[in-house]
Amino acid sequence: MILDTDLGIDDAMALAYALGSPQIELIGVTTIFGNVSTETSIRNTLDLLSLLNKEDIPVYAGASHSYSDENTFVAGAGIRRIHGNNGVGEVQLPRAKKTVEKESAVDFIIQSAKKYGKELVIVAVGPMTNLEDAIKKEPKLKDMVGNIVIMGGALTVPGNVSQLAEANINADAVAANDLFTSGTPLTMVGLDVTNRVRLTNEDTKKWRAIGTTSAKTFADIVDYYIGISSSGSCALHDPLAVAVAVNPDLVQTISMHMVVGTDKEDWGRTIGDKTKLLVPNPNIKVCVNVDHKRFVTDFNEVLSHLFKKN
Amino acid sequence: MILDTDLGIDDAMALAYALGSPQIELIGVTTIFGNVSTETSIRNTLDLLSLLNKEDIPVYAGASHSYSDENTFVAGAGIRRIHGNNGVGEVQLPRAKKTVEKESAVDFIIQSAKKYGKELVIVAVGPMTNLEDAIKKEPKLKDMVGNIVIMGGALTVPGNVSQLAEANINADAVAANDLFTSGTPLTMVGLDVTNRVRLTNEDTKKWRAIGTTSAKTFADIVDYYIGISSSGSCALHDPLAVAVAVNPDLVQTISMHMVVGTDKEDWGRTIGDKTKLLVPNPNIKVCVNVDHKRFVTDFNEVLSHLFKKN
Repeated sequence: MILDTDLGIDDAMALAYALGSPQIELIGVTTIFGNVSTETSIRNTLDLLSLLNKEDIPVYAGASHSYSDENTFVAGAGIRRIHGNNGVGEVQLPRAKKTVEKESAVDFIIQSAKKYGKELVIVAVGPMTNLEDAIKKEPKLKDMVGNIVIMGGALTVPGNVSQLAEANINADAVAANDLFTSGTPLTMVGLDVTNRVRLTNEDTKKWRAIGTTSAKTFADIVDYYIGISSSGSCALHDPLAVAVAVNPDLVQTISMHMVVGTDKEDWGRTIGDKTKLLVPNPNIKVCVNVDHKRFVTDFNEVLSHLFKKN
Repeated sequence: MILDTDLGIDDAMALAYALGSPQIELIGVTTIFGNVSTETSIRNTLDLLSLLNKEDIPVYAGASHSYSDENTFVAGAGIRRIHGNNGVGEVQLPRAKKTVEKESAVDFIIQSAKKYGKELVIVAVGPMTNLEDAIKKEPKLKDMVGNIVIMGGALTVPGNVSQLAEANINADAVAANDLFTSGTPLTMVGLDVTNRVRLTNEDTKKWRAIGTTSAKTFADIVDYYIGISSSGSCALHDPLAVAVAVNPDLVQTISMHMVVGTDKEDWGRTIGDKTKLLVPNPNIKVCVNVDHKRFVTDFNEVLSHLFKKN
């Protein structure tokens, strides 16, 4: 698995879940802007891999800005409130010794697809800019890899940035629309399901009781995330995408051709392509229901096991 | 079955399908505004029942305006273009001798629910004003009847009045929202599926070849409807709702709690209720896929058989 991440708080949990899950071999992490700048995503990924004694996993730099904005991405006040100024809830992580690879995220994705073929699973939990870049550079990519799962979009529920748009799609709707309409087989893990899998302070209290540095650090990070929510819980957006990639029976899906709105009035809307209602073999599976209890239980087990060892 | 209709062209086909289907006993037609005024819906229903030698089926007058507009509904230019000024594609139907019942649509619905209980199926193919009126007058109605199927809404595709709103919902979003959030068990047959079941002039040509008055009249009406479309075909919106009511295996559904937008910026949007994502027993089944070939074949068979007899 390659995890493509804008490393904020739920991304940190997704990374830990991918590292802890016995079903997953994480071969590398590619980074993107979104919850943080790409530079901060690299920093946080390296530091967390070090914290979890996985410095051997390479980290690659991805795009620093979206298709529709040439300026290097800088997180706004709303995002910094949710993930903290440093993307990990103001928790100071020990600095990793390891640095980012020289090879780009896009080249690593393409090379891995050539090396592993259908065994490769790509899980993109930030804006889809790196994926779109990779498919532009290697159009055969869509037929080469086994599965591409994205955390993003909202089909049957409202968005979280606007009534129509979810944050990852909103951050680069142009890239997302190009990807969605490219024919690439995708599984869309959107707010339809991710808002149903939630963690509370009761869960992080159990992590904290484990007593290791990693357990305490993650409890601090996630408590910040729960703390800024008015509901007393936080959604496991990105971890669910990682889980669906290896356990598709966690979710109910519907198959569709889709488009992403790129006009002012429908920016970031993920919706069925009304011009392809009768075209066979839709390329996108949209998750519309989830066995939330099963996933949250599994998630806590995987993370607890990981924290006990680190 | 009770058919609640704003009798325009696809409603005329839905009425014929309900009359011709061996699975359905139509006990009455309640009328509503939408494609036409309620007065014209009554007129067209009576005339079509007479044409099809079913004058014994009673017709009831429903609401003449929506919850958000006190003025009697008058069809605008856009609607008159689609269904014709008279709602049946400018075809002059012979006037029926039968007249509308004295009992109101709402009272007929409630009395029928008391009489038939779970055997009663209500199919509403216009704005949901009569249904909402009935549930307001008899709150137990939602637990009394067997099945309520509506043609309306758009969950996974854009609307047809605006990017968000489908016509039946748009015409009375307030009533629709009250109904959707009332807990009433509903099956939503929206644009997600109805735009996939389509008829062309090839089909109406076969009807015309039957040679009877009803066959020729319906071919004239539907040819008008196909003629105003740029696609060379028309959607069988309302007939599909009637079919789903008796053959639920025609469609794939997902179960949800839903709301209907009643603010200016989301007027008529049918979308998941984000406050009830983890509340069990959702009351709405939304159709998201349809066996379109099977339905169109069945539809043509039922109508041809009916036309041969009349």
